[in-house]
Amino acid sequence: MARGLQVTIRPARRDDVHFIVSMLADDPLGSARERLEHPLPQSYFRAFEALDRDPNIELVVAQDGEGSVVGCLQLCILPGLSSQGASRGLIEDVRVASHCRSRGIGEELVQWALGQARARGCKLVELLTHHTRSDAQRFYERLGFARSHVGMTIRF
Amino acid sequence: MARGLQVTIRPARRDDVHFIVSMLADDPLGSARERLEHPLPQSYFRAFEALDRDPNIELVVAQDGEGSVVGCLQLCILPGLSSQGASRGLIEDVRVASHCRSRGIGEELVQWALGQARARGCKLVELLTHHTRSDAQRFYERLGFARSHVGMTIRF
Repeated sequence: MARGLQVTIRPARRDDVHFIVSMLADDPLGSARERLEHPLPQSYFRAFEALDRDPNIELVVAQDGEGSVVGCLQLCILPGLSSQGASRGLIEDVRVASHCRSRGIGEELVQWALGQARARGCKLVELLTHHTRSDAQRFYERLGFARSHVGMTIRF
Repeated sequence: MARGLQVTIRPARRDDVHFIVSMLADDPLGSARERLEHPLPQSYFRAFEALDRDPNIELVVAQDGEGSVVGCLQLCILPGLSSQGASRGLIEDVRVASHCRSRGIGEELVQWALGQARARGCKLVELLTHHTRSDAQRFYERLGFARSHVGMTIRF
């Protein structure tokens, strides 16, 4: 592993959207799904506004010492009846900028999410990772996650 | 498959909570996690109130012709930036009362959730199913879901 990079984790702002989308698109799976254009399609900004006003969703970025966004993560806190009415945390869209990988930023983001989920009363945090992303699966196992479930999806 | 059972799908009410919890507990995995007591622990009702006021969460029940609750499902609509800012649907806590299984109720619930997710702009619906629930995995595959992801969890 290369030298760790000191980052600050903070809520995403509207002017981070372009950089977050560029990270989502910089990936074999994401590149087919995103439209990284100038200007960015308005649908991204509408989504940002929806999640920004939802108190159960936290989209955060990791910012380096120079103020550059180098990672992102979305945490959803989901109330539900199971497990005696404990909320669940769902982690989505974890990305680290390609030039900053293997420097502990993903771990900082996920540890932040775990701490936040715990503080908000979750007893469980879950995520889906594409079956081809075996590096990601090893990463999450190292942080204490178990490969306990099958993640199933349907696209319209 | 036994004869299908005609059901109505409607939003869950506070007085359904006990029956929903009894379905969650009637299961090898759920029995260890729930506390099916009289009266039910208040944590279940607090969770019901939290999800009932969240416009992005829909907890529904399937009710038979005599007004009995015979199934449940929770759908979460999650805004997010990926896939051009399309929301995602997350299906949780699908249960059918043990005496009513294999009569199409689970399928009705899931088809309801897929229709609702589509109507609310989702391009993807996802769920996690425990790796031991191979019947559930076949059921979801039959409805068009793919085993595309690994579902990872951490419990506190």
